[in-house]
Amino acid sequence: MNLQACGQKVRLAVLGLGSRGLGQMQTLLEMEDVDVTAVCDVYTDRAEAGAEAVQAARGHRPFVTSHYEEAIDRSDVDAAIIMTSWETHVPLAIFAMRHGKRPAIEVGGAASVEECWQMVRASEETGVPLMMLENCCYGEAELTLLRMVREQVFGTLVHCAGAYAHDLRDEIGNGDINRHYRQRHFLHRNGELYPTHELGPIANYLNINRGNRMVALTSMASMARGLHEWLGEHRKDRTDLMNAQVNEGDVVITLIRCANGETIQLTHDCTLPRFYSRGGVIRGTKGMWMEDGHFIFLEGRTPVDPSDWAHHPESDAKYMQEYMHPLWKAYRDFGVRGNHDGMDYLVLRAFVESVQNQTEPPIDVYDAASWMSITALSEASIAAGSLPMAIPDFTDGRWITERRSESRADFDL
Amino acid sequence: MNLQACGQKVRLAVLGLGSRGLGQMQTLLEMEDVDVTAVCDVYTDRAEAGAEAVQAARGHRPFVTSHYEEAIDRSDVDAAIIMTSWETHVPLAIFAMRHGKRPAIEVGGAASVEECWQMVRASEETGVPLMMLENCCYGEAELTLLRMVREQVFGTLVHCAGAYAHDLRDEIGNGDINRHYRQRHFLHRNGELYPTHELGPIANYLNINRGNRMVALTSMASMARGLHEWLGEHRKDRTDLMNAQVNEGDVVITLIRCANGETIQLTHDCTLPRFYSRGGVIRGTKGMWMEDGHFIFLEGRTPVDPSDWAHHPESDAKYMQEYMHPLWKAYRDFGVRGNHDGMDYLVLRAFVESVQNQTEPPIDVYDAASWMSITALSEASIAAGSLPMAIPDFTDGRWITERRSESRADFDL
Repeated sequence: MNLQACGQKVRLAVLGLGSRGLGQMQTLLEMEDVDVTAVCDVYTDRAEAGAEAVQAARGHRPFVTSHYEEAIDRSDVDAAIIMTSWETHVPLAIFAMRHGKRPAIEVGGAASVEECWQMVRASEETGVPLMMLENCCYGEAELTLLRMVREQVFGTLVHCAGAYAHDLRDEIGNGDINRHYRQRHFLHRNGELYPTHELGPIANYLNINRGNRMVALTSMASMARGLHEWLGEHRKDRTDLMNAQVNEGDVVITLIRCANGETIQLTHDCTLPRFYSRGGVIRGTKGMWMEDGHFIFLEGRTPVDPSDWAHHPESDAKYMQEYMHPLWKAYRDFGVRGNHDGMDYLVLRAFVESVQNQTEPPIDVYDAASWMSITALSEASIAAGSLPMAIPDFTDGRWITERRSESRADFDL
Repeated sequence: MNLQACGQKVRLAVLGLGSRGLGQMQTLLEMEDVDVTAVCDVYTDRAEAGAEAVQAARGHRPFVTSHYEEAIDRSDVDAAIIMTSWETHVPLAIFAMRHGKRPAIEVGGAASVEECWQMVRASEETGVPLMMLENCCYGEAELTLLRMVREQVFGTLVHCAGAYAHDLRDEIGNGDINRHYRQRHFLHRNGELYPTHELGPIANYLNINRGNRMVALTSMASMARGLHEWLGEHRKDRTDLMNAQVNEGDVVITLIRCANGETIQLTHDCTLPRFYSRGGVIRGTKGMWMEDGHFIFLEGRTPVDPSDWAHHPESDAKYMQEYMHPLWKAYRDFGVRGNHDGMDYLVLRAFVESVQNQTEPPIDVYDAASWMSITALSEASIAAGSLPMAIPDFTDGRWITERRSESRADFDL
């Protein structure tokens, strides 16, 4: 990746200008080779705030609309950044591809497996690539661990785990006030609603869709009690919310089996008091890493007291220095910037470059479809009492053939 | 519990004198109100070593046999401690009950649900209670956490997790040399082979079989690679082992749903390099605890920086002092003794007292049956591609009625 913004100008339509969308657009506006020519939100005040941000940064007013078709289908738009509510990512992305514009979609899950297929077919039929903006694939820890995995520090990988463990009761409980789509999803659905922050990096470690794939899953949801209690205490202003039935279990665990025998555990954990964590775990035949506690244990390297049968981990700090990913070394020299410890800038830059160079984005439509399908399949599994569900092969077998040895910008060492 | 050994003499048959059995017998022989009148092992050298240990401690030689029937069915035996291989716990316990002798069985899992029912029916038909020697139910941390749970420190419990995470490649790989039954189980089976160290304490937290019960589970196993690689490197002396097919997945995860909506995660994790952990996690509507890292986060108590969206945990140390269980307070005054940080003494003492007082043991045949059945059911689930399996109600509905408010020695506060 060329961290410096020095390519051909890319003109973007930005769709969805809630707090995430506005923040991402501001990171984009710091890139000299990016312009925003259209902004769109169903809430006109948000669209207007977006337009003002462009005006302030670039000295011109973009096209402003509440209709996504108008924002995307314009001659001065090269690509579309879709940061709308979860349920609209896929239809907007399909519209963009059908109109020849590369879409980048923010993270989220799918409501059905069918919409994932629609997204894949739209890309295949139009030849327009899609990228998912999974920023955590660009996290400093995640890329460092990817290098360790590739260099066999953990031996053969056997099991990985990750979580979206983030107490969001306040955000969800006040979702109607903040016009946040999360509230309606948590009230109505029950599944792994938000898998990609942890699944994206794990998919890279395990070569998912490139020589390996996710084959089947089973999910189980705990009772839904945390948000319900929170609403009872904090939303006495709205009796419908105060007494609302919450469908989303407080702790939803999904187990995934891969074609090559590895397993993945995902935990969705947003409505009980806790500390933030992406709950990363990497297990191999030569060692392990665990995010909580920053623990590592490497056979032959981590000191072991032979008189103590219970081995103990060590801090991962020195290994995280030793194995820093080349992209992050360059990024530190260049100057880390943007939100979420700098990973937002990297993922946006990757998209902009793929548009400039007309290359395949590093996180493509097959990654997006397979990762997003986990949400719909976990809902189906839970609805059927943890019945195992087959995960489709969105590559139609090409994970075994040409995709096996595909070179990937950013993620190859 | 009366920690002092000062009751009526209890005369024991001790069955199974491998390293665990011998160690437990030595802890028993430190109790003045316990005698060992019979020792039994299929290996005569082990039985002889047991006899010598009794001779050294008590100045008399016990009856020595390799036939369990002979050891149990004696007029000078009041009760039987069964510490044999996993697959023989149930038939020996049933024999003991059918002959009017209270059995205590070491921990392990069942090979079939049917043998769990046989064990329950033998106890019901004879009126002879059975106890499982789940020492971890008496661990200092586990009892402290039980008190915290009972005092609602975590609010309403929603989810618990635990693990048997112990790198046993050496022990299993050399199992034939050590005559350890674990080797044959790991080579042939694939499931949650050893659930009770973590499930026992969790069952106490969640009132399993006493107002709540485990309803269904699903299990998934990773590939079996760790032990296979270890055997290839370390057992070149035995080509059958060096090339052996290992069936037991390196990481086997079981998700359990309870009648009252709580979920339990169990992880069996014995054949990859790692540090030891029982992987405890307790999640409630007011807080959480996590064994790895000794982390706790309690709403309204753990300090939170309002400017930092990612909350952070604190050390559990001061809470573990504040909520120390009364049994452990007394035990510290009395003097902690025996193996495994003192919990072995407590669980053995509980059994001896239940024999002396002819009372119901604190961990009874319904607990043993339901906990042990998880092994057989997890194997079934994995064999059927993570199909969910219903967990039998071994109490035949009495978890809802008379067992709901049952008082329990040691575990009530």
